[in-house]
Formats: sequence, structure tokens, C-alpha cells
Amino acid sequence: MGEPTRICVIGGGAAGISAGSMAKRTNPDATVVVCTEFEDVAYSPCGIPYVLGREIPDFQRLFLAGPENYEQAGIDLRRETAVSAIDAHNRTVTANGNIIPWDVLVVCTGFKYLLPDVPGNDLEGLTYVKNIRRGMELNETLNDVKKAVVLESTPLGVEMLAALAQRGIETHLVDEGSWLLSQVADPDIAEPVQKSLESLGCQLHFGAHLERFEGENGRLTRVVTSQGAIDADICVIATHKEPETTLARSIGLKLGSTGGIVVDEGMRTSMPGVFAAGDCVEVPQGMTGVAVQGLTGAHAMQQGRVAGANAGGGTRRYDAVYVPWGMVGGHVQIGGASFGEHLATSMGIPFVVGRANGISRARYYPGVQQVVVKLLAEPGTGRLIGAQMVGGEGVKERADFLAFALKRGATVEDLAFMENVYSPPIGALYEPMSVAALNAMAQL
Amino acid sequence: MGEPTRICVIGGGAAGISAGSMAKRTNPDATVVVCTEFEDVAYSPCGIPYVLGREIPDFQRLFLAGPENYEQAGIDLRRETAVSAIDAHNRTVTANGNIIPWDVLVVCTGFKYLLPDVPGNDLEGLTYVKNIRRGMELNETLNDVKKAVVLESTPLGVEMLAALAQRGIETHLVDEGSWLLSQVADPDIAEPVQKSLESLGCQLHFGAHLERFEGENGRLTRVVTSQGAIDADICVIATHKEPETTLARSIGLKLGSTGGIVVDEGMRTSMPGVFAAGDCVEVPQGMTGVAVQGLTGAHAMQQGRVAGANAGGGTRRYDAVYVPWGMVGGHVQIGGASFGEHLATSMGIPFVVGRANGISRARYYPGVQQVVVKLLAEPGTGRLIGAQMVGGEGVKERADFLAFALKRGATVEDLAFMENVYSPPIGALYEPMSVAALNAMAQL
Repeated sequence: MGEPTRICVIGGGAAGISAGSMAKRTNPDATVVVCTEFEDVAYSPCGIPYVLGREIPDFQRLFLAGPENYEQAGIDLRRETAVSAIDAHNRTVTANGNIIPWDVLVVCTGFKYLLPDVPGNDLEGLTYVKNIRRGMELNETLNDVKKAVVLESTPLGVEMLAALAQRGIETHLVDEGSWLLSQVADPDIAEPVQKSLESLGCQLHFGAHLERFEGENGRLTRVVTSQGAIDADICVIATHKEPETTLARSIGLKLGSTGGIVVDEGMRTSMPGVFAAGDCVEVPQGMTGVAVQGLTGAHAMQQGRVAGANAGGGTRRYDAVYVPWGMVGGHVQIGGASFGEHLATSMGIPFVVGRANGISRARYYPGVQQVVVKLLAEPGTGRLIGAQMVGGEGVKERADFLAFALKRGATVEDLAFMENVYSPPIGALYEPMSVAALNAMAQL
Repeated sequence: MGEPTRICVIGGGAAGISAGSMAKRTNPDATVVVCTEFEDVAYSPCGIPYVLGREIPDFQRLFLAGPENYEQAGIDLRRETAVSAIDAHNRTVTANGNIIPWDVLVVCTGFKYLLPDVPGNDLEGLTYVKNIRRGMELNETLNDVKKAVVLESTPLGVEMLAALAQRGIETHLVDEGSWLLSQVADPDIAEPVQKSLESLGCQLHFGAHLERFEGENGRLTRVVTSQGAIDADICVIATHKEPETTLARSIGLKLGSTGGIVVDEGMRTSMPGVFAAGDCVEVPQGMTGVAVQGLTGAHAMQQGRVAGANAGGGTRRYDAVYVPWGMVGGHVQIGGASFGEHLATSMGIPFVVGRANGISRARYYPGVQQVVVKLLAEPGTGRLIGAQMVGGEGVKERADFLAFALKRGATVEDLAFMENVYSPPIGALYEPMSVAALNAMAQL
């Protein structure tokens, strides 16, 4: 067999860590090096807004495992090790001046938030919520912040609006869209979340174009938009997650329509021996085949597993995605799978809609919550093509269900006559998804 | 066309009411008579334990709609109208001395709890939890009750144990089984529920055979079991829901192995023009084809819809069932779909098991709950054949998902690589069902 395989993973996020772990598990003889530019690995960046909003008491809780766990698993984890160059010909990477050879490379370089290309974008006070050390610093800064702007109502933006408002900070949203979460949610579905944020005191400015940042002594003081200026001590940049592909481009990996690295169903890039996973790649959406990028930590983790298994010599496949999503905005849960009415209309996809104002438990049981479900079905066949939800509980589990139903080609008839648990404290006689499906059938 | 069709429904429970409503909707020209022996319709009998346990403040909340709603929908709803006989030859029923003619009959006579065949079964204090008026009476009685016995840990029995204990009554379970809910749940899955009931003060007697009831002045004072006597003011009979088939048998409808009425997939009985639905019928379990009976209110409602649609001239089908189930026992949610290890073993069905001790939210997010998922898969193919769960939240929604996955022939591989929502307040990075499936794959 000769030398054992040398596998190098660039990136210590969800994709990189799961790729490294799965590569080692698949091929225990391989040497697996995981390089991350950061101090920390295996923490939950998704938890940062909740520490900032004081729902979680400290950052320490976000750590899942110490670096020693990876060493015990036989992974050569190198922290504070930024890869500065890849030599594709000699199959090495350069990191902190050292040369690391590889036979198989896994690129998990993640995403970045683009600095808005407007005047004043070098002022102190512009901030991202991404890295835990920066999060800790921001947490201190927030003690002195009176007014804040969040740029764009992406899922992170919405989480940060609530977090800042809950800290008693005067919080503004600046968003070019016409409603909250307009990239993913329909306006009727987003409305209860919008109201919940407003009830927390958030001031939401829609259709507002960012013009410039203004400051004094190098510090942000105002965010100027097409709708006027907003006094602000900080501005949280919560724009789209742009794929970080500097290294990938340097060796000529093929990029796709989203700017993400193109991978096949084995997470192989255009270069033999080079895999990629996570927020730096694009994958096909199952219903349309359209490339999508910048999904969730769960997607990054699963992609990392597939890339790692195949880097270790396995033959695992990553399927097209139906993207179940869900989050809490203010005090309301919102989510869905595949696309909603707005996106379907933009893409020219015909559909009929079934909607239900359902409930999560028996109508008389304490804690019962509204669960609004909207299903999109293909005219003619009745095949489910998308779903949107908003409500008080059970949105995550239903989004998972609907993504699975979408993937299996279920029709609204299948859902209308589905079996469901009925027990007063945990489920209503009429399952909201089933009612929405029945209503969709009436439209077909 | 001649005379409009005359449709008669016997029974005003979930099956009867939905059959009547759907028959009228399918054939608006038909005359639809629904006879119920009781005073009330369209209330939630499943809510009675929660009023008794004071989680719900009054019985009035259990009513969904008044009788006038049915009259407005064109249904001739006859309350306190007990059908005493069916004349299958002349196509009539006799109720309260009146003759009601029918062209199509729908039998929705429900279930009964069998009075235990032991001495003393005529004593006052033996009680059922089924009818709302009797529930109201029991609610008054309980004010003076110090000690109670619940006979059998069926789902209702478990709900009543908690309800009685929460009222400060010394509460005992008498059950021949070796663990709680032994007819539906595996012992490891039932254990947390058992502990929760014990923490409420319930005294659970397993392997206890009921020998007799003893009383004074015609009132129950003791329940005598193979393990000794228990002082008790009341005994709640929460045994298996036996199909009520007196009328069905009187006209020779074919009964099946469970004692329930045999129906085809259109809910047609063995007699032309006669349909049946709800707890009085048996239907095939999807995984085994074995007949099952006495399911949930949601099943009765869906069966009633199918029977009603077909009684009205439609062509609707009721599929074999995978029986998602879920309930709260003490403070713990328990549920599943299809069967568990214990039942699979009894039936001689080979399986491998994957188990996960998962969580419902990010491990650091307030309110996170444990969710234990156990999946059974067919050796070789990996096809999912059953599921059991216990935990703090999300059991109902996962049971619905798993019943759907079972019906669609999903494998544990499909579940292991499913997409899932990850958002700290509502879902963990690793979906518990997915982890259990991954563990099952390792066993295959």
C-alpha cells in the first residue's frame, strides 16, 4: 500500500470538523490535518445572538468539545493556522510558513459577510456576528451601546434585532426588501414575526437603501439611508453569506452561478483529489435544480460528512436539498421548506396554494399556539413543491417533515389524508399541515 | 333520479359526526340523519382527563360546536336517540320507537370498556371515563375521593393516573403487564413516564391480577389483586377499547380477529349499502397487514370522512394504518409509530435497533429537552418498520413524520441523511431521528 493517505482539511467550522472526523473514521490509517485560522473549534456560532441577547448566560456554553477530543480521535487539529496558499501541482498547502503535504484536500473555507461598498465602511462600530471571540468583544461593547442598526433582515439579522432590543438598545432594521425575511419568507408568513419584533421595540425600515456610514473620530455615529439618517453606535452587518473562495479561485476550482464552489454529488470539486463542503460550495435545490448556497449549520455538517467520507475513500452521496428552515423571530417561530409563493412567482413556477390557520394542541389545552401552514402544490399533479409556516410551536419538526415529503414526491392528497397524533396536550385533532393540504386539494 | 338518497349514521362520536358531515358535503341532495344515544355531540372526550386533573378549568371548553351547526349544514342530528334495532331487509332502523328508513347506513357505534368479570363488579364507584356528562358527575365525586385505583395502564389509564394524583388523591395502578403501557411501548421507553408518575405520588402495581372488588353498602371500598388489597373509593376502568358491535352483529356484519367490524378500503362492511367507521371497525396495520382496532380520535375522524364520502356516492380510500401515537404521561411525552421491540419480538418480526439520546433544541438553549428515539429497521434492506420515543417535546410531530416515512417505505439511511432545521431555540444540530437512524445503520 505504500504511504498512508494524507488528508488536509482547510477550515474548522461545521463542515471542516465533520469532514476531518468522518475522513479519519472512514480511513483510520490516513493522516488527517485540519487547519483553522481561528483560536477555537467545535463551538456553536449560531448561539452567539442568544448570548448577546442574554437568553444564554455565557459564551462558554457554546463550546461543544475541547480541541483535545479531536487529538484523541487521531486528528491533527491545527488552530490559529491560516492557510495562505495551496500548491495544486505539488499538492501542498502553506500555513503559518509551514508546508503541509496532502494527497486529498477538503476545502471548507465557509463564508464571509461583504463589507458594504459605501462611504464610511472603515469606521469602528461596523460589526459582524460570526466568530466567538469577536462575539465576546461585542458583548462588552454592547454595555455602552444606546442605539444600533442591523443591516438586512436575514435570519441572523432577525435574531440580532431581537437580541439587541432585549438588551434595551434602541434597535433599527435597514432593509432594501419590502418585508421581513423577504429573501425566504412570504409577506403574510413574515407578518407575525414583524409584529413581534415591533412589540419588542424594534424600528423596521423597509425599502431603505444604505447610502453611507458617518462617524466622528473614526467611530460610527449615523447610518444614512435613502429614507434618512439613523443615529447609531454600532451597525451589525447581517447580509447574505458570501462564499469564501479566495483559496479555491487561486487553484482554479470551478465556481457556479452563486459564486460558490461547484461540487458533484460526492462533494468533489472540478479538480481531482479536491473536495469541498459547507458555506463555500453550492448544491442543487431538489425541486428546481437551481444552485443554492449559504444554507444552515446542519447542511454544512452533513456536506462535511459526505466530503470527509469520500476523502477517506468512501462512496457517500449528498442529495439535492429541499432546505427545511426555521427560526425564532421575536417570540414567533417561522420556517418552511423549499420555496414560498413569492419565490415561486419570481421563478415563474406555477402553483396552487392551500393555507390553514391551525393549532398546535387541542384548542382548549393550556399553551395551545397558532400554527399557520401554507402549502404550494403543482397544478395538475398536486405534488407538493413548497411550504411556509409561522406559529408558536412545532415549526422545526414540521419543516423537517415537509422537506422529507418534498423529497419523496408527496402530493397534497398524501398529506391531506396523513395519519396524525391527536392528544390534547401535544396535538390537535386536525393536523395543520393536513388541513392546508386539504385546502390545496380544493384549489386543484 | 327518483327519490334522494337517505343516509343514516348511527353514532355521534368523531367517526359518526365526520361521516354525516362528509356524506352531506359529497351528496347535498341526500337526507342525512345522524342518531346518537347521548345528549351531546361534537365535544372532545379526550379532554375529560384534563378537566378532572384541573389542567382545564371546565367541561364547557371541550365543546367544539353546538348542535345547531349541524342543522345549518343540513344534517338531521337526533340526540338522545338510541338505535335499538336495524332491519337490514326493509332498510330501516328503530330509534326511540320511531322507524327511520335508509338507503345507505353508516355504523359508527364506537367502543365500550368491558366491565371486569370478577365479583363485586356491580358496586358503586366503578367508573369509566368516556361520556362528558358522566365526566361531570365524576368531577363532583372526586371532591370526596381519598383513594383511587386505575385499572390498566392504557393511554387513558396513564392520563387518569396523573389527573387523580394531581388532585391530591392517593392513586394506584393495577396492571397485569410488567411495565407501563406494555401494550404499546417498550419498557425502556416507558420508564421515564413511569418515574414521572411515581414522582407525582402514583403507586404502580405491575403483574397484579384483579381478583375482586369489595364494598360496603353497595359502594366500593377495596380492590383486591393477586398482590393484595388496595383501599379505594373509586376504580377507573381503563381497559382496552372493545368494539361495540351489538347492532352490527344483529344484522350479521362480518367481524374480524379483533372483534371489530371488517371493512374494505372504502369502509364498506360485508353488507352492501352498509358502511362502518371508528372504534367499532378494524383496519389493517400497514407494516404487517394484521388487523388493528381501537385507535385514536384522529383515526375515527378520518375513517368517518372516508365512509361518509363513499356513503354519499364518492370513491375515497382509507389506507392501511401506521398508527402514529403520542401522549403525555406525568410530565413526559411518549409516542411512536407502528410497533416497538417488544411487539416486533412477540410477532416474530426480525429487526435491528438504532437508538439515540437526542435533544430538542441546542444543548445550551433554555428549555432544551431530552428526546429519546428508537428506530426498528428490517435487517438487509434497512427499511424502517417501527419507532418509539420518549422525551420532553416534539414527540407528536416526530411520530407523524415517522408514520409518514413508514408509509413511504423509507429506510434508516434515508433518515440518517435527512435534512433538518438547526436553530438553537427550536432544533439541535443533530436531529434525534437522524442520529437513531445512523446508529441503526451501524447495526445493519
